[in-house]
Amino acid sequence: MKELEDRIRNEGKVFPGNILKVDSFLNHQVDIKLLDDIGTEFYRLYKFAGITKILTIEASGIAIASLTAYHFQVPFVFAKKAQSANLGNEVYTSRVHSYTHNKDYPIMLSKSYLTSDDTVLIVDDFLANGKAAEGLLDICKQAGAKVAGIGICVEKGFQEGGKVLREQGCRVTSLAIIDSMTDNDLVFRSHEEEK
Amino acid sequence: MKELEDRIRNEGKVFPGNILKVDSFLNHQVDIKLLDDIGTEFYRLYKFAGITKILTIEASGIAIASLTAYHFQVPFVFAKKAQSANLGNEVYTSRVHSYTHNKDYPIMLSKSYLTSDDTVLIVDDFLANGKAAEGLLDICKQAGAKVAGIGICVEKGFQEGGKVLREQGCRVTSLAIIDSMTDNDLVFRSHEEEK
Repeated sequence: MKELEDRIRNEGKVFPGNILKVDSFLNHQVDIKLLDDIGTEFYRLYKFAGITKILTIEASGIAIASLTAYHFQVPFVFAKKAQSANLGNEVYTSRVHSYTHNKDYPIMLSKSYLTSDDTVLIVDDFLANGKAAEGLLDICKQAGAKVAGIGICVEKGFQEGGKVLREQGCRVTSLAIIDSMTDNDLVFRSHEEEK
Repeated sequence: MKELEDRIRNEGKVFPGNILKVDSFLNHQVDIKLLDDIGTEFYRLYKFAGITKILTIEASGIAIASLTAYHFQVPFVFAKKAQSANLGNEVYTSRVHSYTHNKDYPIMLSKSYLTSDDTVLIVDDFLANGKAAEGLLDICKQAGAKVAGIGICVEKGFQEGGKVLREQGCRVTSLAIIDSMTDNDLVFRSHEEEK
């Protein structure tokens, strides 16, 4: 998605440890026009997939899920990290490893809001090692829900998450894939837009 | 807002300790039509206020802010709770007391995304004791930003937050105000919709 690549190129900031900050438009301040265009693009890619629900994880995924759900006109649901959870006992749980904080954390989703009747589009802002996506896939598996695909805004293509998920047979659609990054240079993977 | 009151009456669940769960449509699973109508209503109430930015706090406020920003066509920005923050040094900080978890937690917002040029609409899903709203007001004050008002989905009118904020001169517009609640009964404050 050229618009997103341009924003990353012009406003993204690279820090040591493969950190890419896109705070000015995606996950702290959020540009609503860009967010709308992201939702529009996910709808274009999955509109024939029979999506009944958008699934993400708090916190920054919620913005992506909101405008994506708006274009699909289906509900969205966000998995909660445990410390914020007040969900009762009937929950799906999984564990996610955070490389940023170097620890595992539990995630939870109420069983009421994801069932075997659902066809799910998972969305998130970033895909790097893929651990959050794997946690969400695990929850979908527990629910018996069908996963149509994983829609990602920014994939760090030099980390393994996207490769592992695709090798498992997941459809992973990343709107921008970065193959390498340094302070001075960002290389995006060239790609034909999926039809 | 009758649509929201009806949803709370039909789907809300009351638990001991004045806990009202609206997980099925507002802050775990989110009904996108309702969220859109909430954004539309905040736009109706504040469209002449010169809003340049929508401000909220992670996590569930992000959904409200997304569809509100969509109707205003202005950016939104969400304050981060400290453990998720990776914002560098140039941040506004404040502290918020959580009655749910009985502790204070710090909140942060990058100085780049709120300035004295901004006129802000603060939005959130709940208002009870008002501590999160006060933290966001404190950040706006540090930024020198003008606050046009505070848009709340569900105000617990039997707790003091709304009263305290209004006495300070804030415009607080709550789409549903609950004056009392028990397992069997929810009493909403009657109100003329603001013109």
